[in-house]
Amino acid sequence: MEKRHPRILFRKRLKELRADVEQMGKEALSAYRDSIKVLLKYDEEKIKRIVETADKIDEMNYNLEHKTLSVIASEQPVAGDLRFIETCIKVGGHLKRIGYLASNITEVAKKIKDEEVPEKPMDDIIHMADIVENMVSKSLAAFLGQNMDIARELRRDDDKVDDLFDRALKDITQSMFDDQETISYLVYLLFLARILERIADRAENIGDRTIFMITCKKP
Amino acid sequence: MEKRHPRILFRKRLKELRADVEQMGKEALSAYRDSIKVLLKYDEEKIKRIVETADKIDEMNYNLEHKTLSVIASEQPVAGDLRFIETCIKVGGHLKRIGYLASNITEVAKKIKDEEVPEKPMDDIIHMADIVENMVSKSLAAFLGQNMDIARELRRDDDKVDDLFDRALKDITQSMFDDQETISYLVYLLFLARILERIADRAENIGDRTIFMITCKKP
Repeated sequence: MEKRHPRILFRKRLKELRADVEQMGKEALSAYRDSIKVLLKYDEEKIKRIVETADKIDEMNYNLEHKTLSVIASEQPVAGDLRFIETCIKVGGHLKRIGYLASNITEVAKKIKDEEVPEKPMDDIIHMADIVENMVSKSLAAFLGQNMDIARELRRDDDKVDDLFDRALKDITQSMFDDQETISYLVYLLFLARILERIADRAENIGDRTIFMITCKKP
Repeated sequence: MEKRHPRILFRKRLKELRADVEQMGKEALSAYRDSIKVLLKYDEEKIKRIVETADKIDEMNYNLEHKTLSVIASEQPVAGDLRFIETCIKVGGHLKRIGYLASNITEVAKKIKDEEVPEKPMDDIIHMADIVENMVSKSLAAFLGQNMDIARELRRDDDKVDDLFDRALKDITQSMFDDQETISYLVYLLFLARILERIADRAENIGDRTIFMITCKKP
């Protein structure tokens, strides 16, 4: 029995890392969801919570990094275990970024809250936002469940987001043409589309890392 | 003597990590500089090289990550050494991102190459680009020379970039008002301003990590 104890402790520490990433994922997803709600219905209180959540995820990521490095230093894991730990660090970094991007969305919400945003570009944005929400959720499921199929789907989703971004770009510039008065706030809609695209990229990256963790091959 | 050998080897491995980051930094800075040149004078060949450099830095970063984790696993470093190694991973990640952002700048160059971009927003952009170049260069000097003063300067520089970004945003939307025909390509100038801002953020982050590495306190 003597020799088994350290192994059991090691497994426990890996499980803890996974639980930390899961918690960070939940926070990031909820911050993102709320940021889209705030876009549709302005809410100062909610914005405050989103900004706090982003900072909290940053703090959690900082702790996660330290934990992972201390596990590596003390346990000297190899192969699959090492790849799992590396992936935790990477996924944590992406989730932290998603938290801050959600917080950036609330800044756009502030800029457009008193404007009558034309329907067409806003529809594009909301369509993008829905797919992106799905992607973040899928990326967590892929990593936590070590599920290759879901991870692969993220690449197709990201292509969809890229297409929608191009359409949003076209519709936004068209609205600027149609009514010059809109230019001053429609620029923020452009930034918003970019933020959504970047969140989608992060979700895709989480999927790619998951594939790499399982197969040891870059997708 | 017997006991000294592993220590000497360990120091050698740390030096190697530093040299790797230095090389990545040189590549990232040169890709960025070239991307700004391409913006002013379109050059297909140069663009190809920038895109290749971004991929090369990505590959170097991938190798750096593996090297760092293997040093941690085999040497179990503590305190200052561990913080140095962690900082190498972080700085590597930022440099990789700067490489891809330089590659994004070349996409903007493609979009605006046949347009007569109004002088005023372009002046703002070039002014921003100069400060950002300086920041990337300073961030490398701060990390490689473990220089707190330079690292602290980056915070002030970043404030300057933020101000210039706001001015560029104002000038670009004004140009859109003045001449509607410009809207379709001026949106890319907006994206460009955002890319520059993001590169500045990465440089500032490298400075912050350097301060943390030296003082063990978040700036």
